[in-house]
Amino acid sequence: MSHNLLKGKRGLIFGALNESSIAWKVAELAHEEGATFVLTNTPVAMRMGTIDELAARTGSFVIPADATNVADLERLVKEGMEKLGGKFDFVLHSIGMSPNVRKGRTYDDLDYDYLDKTLDISAISFHKILQVCWKLDAINEWGSVLALSYIAAQRTLYGYNDMADAKALLESIARSFGYIYGRERQVRINTISQSPTMTTAGSGVMGFDALLDFADRMSPLGNASADECASFCVTMFSDLTRKITMQNLFHDGGFSNMGMSNRAMAVYNKNLEECKDCK
Amino acid sequence: MSHNLLKGKRGLIFGALNESSIAWKVAELAHEEGATFVLTNTPVAMRMGTIDELAARTGSFVIPADATNVADLERLVKEGMEKLGGKFDFVLHSIGMSPNVRKGRTYDDLDYDYLDKTLDISAISFHKILQVCWKLDAINEWGSVLALSYIAAQRTLYGYNDMADAKALLESIARSFGYIYGRERQVRINTISQSPTMTTAGSGVMGFDALLDFADRMSPLGNASADECASFCVTMFSDLTRKITMQNLFHDGGFSNMGMSNRAMAVYNKNLEECKDCK
Amino acid sequence: MSHNLLKGKRGLIFGALNESSIAWKVAELAHEEGATFVLTNTPVAMRMGTIDELAARTGSFVIPADATNVADLERLVKEGMEKLGGKFDFVLHSIGMSPNVRKGRTYDDLDYDYLDKTLDISAISFHKILQVCWKLDAINEWGSVLALSYIAAQRTLYGYNDMADAKALLESIARSFGYIYGRERQVRINTISQSPTMTTAGSGVMGFDALLDFADRMSPLGNASADECASFCVTMFSDLTRKITMQNLFHDGGFSNMGMSNRAMAVYNKNLEECKDCK
Amino acid sequence: MSHNLLKGKRGLIFGALNESSIAWKVAELAHEEGATFVLTNTPVAMRMGTIDELAARTGSFVIPADATNVADLERLVKEGMEKLGGKFDFVLHSIGMSPNVRKGRTYDDLDYDYLDKTLDISAISFHKILQVCWKLDAINEWGSVLALSYIAAQRTLYGYNDMADAKALLESIARSFGYIYGRERQVRINTISQSPTMTTAGSGVMGFDALLDFADRMSPLGNASADECASFCVTMFSDLTRKITMQNLFHDGGFSNMGMSNRAMAVYNKNLEECKDCK
Repeated sequence: MSHNLLKGKRGLIFGALNESSIAWKVAELAHEEGATFVLTNTPVAMRMGTIDELAARTGSFVIPADATNVADLERLVKEGMEKLGGKFDFVLHSIGMSPNVRKGRTYDDLDYDYLDKTLDISAISFHKILQVCWKLDAINEWGSVLALSYIAAQRTLYGYNDMADAKALLESIARSFGYIYGRERQVRINTISQSPTMTTAGSGVMGFDALLDFADRMSPLGNASADECASFCVTMFSDLTRKITMQNLFHDGGFSNMGMSNRAMAVYNKNLEECKDCK
Repeated sequence: MSHNLLKGKRGLIFGALNESSIAWKVAELAHEEGATFVLTNTPVAMRMGTIDELAARTGSFVIPADATNVADLERLVKEGMEKLGGKFDFVLHSIGMSPNVRKGRTYDDLDYDYLDKTLDISAISFHKILQVCWKLDAINEWGSVLALSYIAAQRTLYGYNDMADAKALLESIARSFGYIYGRERQVRINTISQSPTMTTAGSGVMGFDALLDFADRMSPLGNASADECASFCVTMFSDLTRKITMQNLFHDGGFSNMGMSNRAMAVYNKNLEECKDCK
Repeated sequence: MSHNLLKGKRGLIFGALNESSIAWKVAELAHEEGATFVLTNTPVAMRMGTIDELAARTGSFVIPADATNVADLERLVKEGMEKLGGKFDFVLHSIGMSPNVRKGRTYDDLDYDYLDKTLDISAISFHKILQVCWKLDAINEWGSVLALSYIAAQRTLYGYNDMADAKALLESIARSFGYIYGRERQVRINTISQSPTMTTAGSGVMGFDALLDFADRMSPLGNASADECASFCVTMFSDLTRKITMQNLFHDGGFSNMGMSNRAMAVYNKNLEECKDCK
Repeated sequence: MSHNLLKGKRGLIFGALNESSIAWKVAELAHEEGATFVLTNTPVAMRMGTIDELAARTGSFVIPADATNVADLERLVKEGMEKLGGKFDFVLHSIGMSPNVRKGRTYDDLDYDYLDKTLDISAISFHKILQVCWKLDAINEWGSVLALSYIAAQRTLYGYNDMADAKALLESIARSFGYIYGRERQVRINTISQSPTMTTAGSGVMGFDALLDFADRMSPLGNASADECASFCVTMFSDLTRKITMQNLFHDGGFSNMGMSNRAMAVYNKNLEECKDCK
């Protein structure tokens, strides 16, 4: 059932690769809620995924762009406004990738060119998008911008590698630009720190299944799904949350404020006896 | 325009004193969004305020209760469910009062009986409400509970006195009970940390006008109003935010993540020279 | 080897019950580092423990007092200054007790008289000590006050019960009074958030052994011991840390900033398969 | 008076430009406390500053190196261990620079090559130092590593620009590497979040004088000086703080936990009347 929360709003959505993507779910729900929008991804990601199908289903436009390339972004933003017939009301950044993770370089053996790429793709791209929108005056007053983050920005998780640093940088950019964009144009900028989610990106992280299980048992409400994340994003894009900005919002079933749960401890304890020499 | 976000939902709202109250605004908007609910306040507050008018306008029930009194709360919750014809889907706690503040006892000269009252009224009442609901199984699965808090729980503000400690306690109770209520009954419990708001309660704090001005100029989007707070509360009561729990959510125009703004600094600097001896 | 970090300093130490107490270790080390001090505890705790032995070994004075009783505290502070020949340079609050925990009342079934006691003993006593010292002007300029806390103040741990709320209140009091005491008399007030420690108090918490193991494997440096805590306390009482105030300082081997460690995950994973129905 | 806190310890200190530098003060105090160490800076910074004078006074070695250049760092670390006759016990990273700030590029008009430099110099250099030390096994067990940070990593301050993002990245690197270095070699890694300090670097920030004044009046103990920071660093390098790791430690007179102080408000209010149209 639609609540018409985004009726008449125009959006720009980065990162819908395939139907397991959070951005994909956001696009579907934004459509239901009355928005029109542009979908974008890199040409490579487009070939790997099925974004055209999503565009067809939601009546949206697809414009390829490399989010680390300012010229690409300028073209995207201009073309996007033309297609939609006006400025954007919401923007979603759901982009992250670490060549160090992909190539199996551990955090004590980072390749620094890869690290630059991790930061550029996963964090600096967010600044580039915002700066391009800012310079082209492409976001309406009281518009809402979201980027997807993860608790690794605050706490270290085995195997998350340099993506943790990228998320910390991403959240800082949201605050820094949130101040300026808020003060001058009443645009709010927030990050959502989502439960670990079984997307194409997430599944690349070492030991992801075990982490999913642990997070689920630590969280009183269990892990938040991609669909649930999309619902929350819609409230953040709506006019009902206008005074929230520069925040990192945990959408994680309670994980972030848990120290130890009964359910996770049940698994932990069961194995404890046998595990006295586990290193 | 209603979004029907609370269609068919039943609620319990504490703390609607008069039309400047945040709880009042929440009640009005919850009504628009399709909810039915019980309004409650202490008998004294009811005489001081105009809650009956609100009840009439929103088709809601008024049941007096002292939120620090467990027997009162039991009666309230039972009677409330009867009147509404079912369990609650949402609960709002918007209660706070410090006899130390009222009587002008500064934080280095607290009266400890007053402190007990501050904590009982402003924080422990929240536990009592939750425990009574828990024992009477009065909240539906996936229900949502909110309490209103303030950034004084994290940072010291001149003049806020023992209410700061009460808010810290309140937020801790939200986490502690949020874990249990989430794990066992899928009920989420959060606090909203709202901008300073010119309510009857707020206006009792020393130097409140200056604080309002400072907070407004520090916040890129300005202070959040009571109406805006109500909008956010509605999203938190809706089914779109089901996996957010145990959180303290800043609804403050960005204040909480600002260190110093240009606008506040403009005031500060103006006559800094003349102020070299300001103590 | 002594560093003479507390040479000539006078102290007041609450909570040394027996040689497993953190306060006991602090007293021993403070003595080595050149301090003289008063030890205090409730008459009951004194009978249970062996504080006289500690006093003899460290050349310190024992003055019984109930830290929830203002008259007791006034007598203690006056008498303490007389015995030591001057104002205090440091104060340690290492007091915590929950009748709800002791009597097995779970957090969804709290006895509210017990809760009042938990808060009074574990948190409000800190305010009482500070207010008594403040009114009697009993702490020297640049003095240092510490209270021992636990991460349950920020994150919920199964079984920690209302002590979590007490610690949140305790940390808030440190901030609130730290502002005033810092501004007016250059006295700093901080809390130390210590690893779970096998003291008489700690061992009362449900499932404490398993928690200790989990915390140890989550923390890259392992749990911090009572002796290590004492070392840190001494640096915080010394003149080398004069500008740190209103902080909660994690002394926990890194636990607080870990999301998931390899070592804890090794235990967790071992028989995850067998545990599919662990609730 | 020396406490011999660093007796026999060997160190590596980055960033001592001239006698207003925090790293300079750390070097002086580390010398007093019994340490021997290597001083390093870029060749350019060495010509601008007076590091040789410091080396002479403290009996330390100077080895030029560009902290963004891995080959330079490898040479530095090897040569440093040779000169000192063993592995390092402590490392100080006090490096930060933003070409965007220097060239007057505001945060909504960043040059992305400059941003890369800001991040590389101010944050990634820290990872490079740690990774080089890790690979060369250059830090003793229970060694201590510190980097200097600023509260801009958490909260936005007008004019601090992309240095805020660099500090957020720096603090994340401390956590991420702190996990590995702690787990494998018992080395602790922390950042100190220092008051704004009138160093050569600090004075480049827009509106720095006013910020210093505001921070000073907000902080109950006033701003922390470079000398006071050095004292704290020495405690963190000593054996008394072995179990603190992955933390960001505020050394700021209480600023970080203040929302509004009486003293800052006195200045603010004075000007408020006249400032009704201040933007």
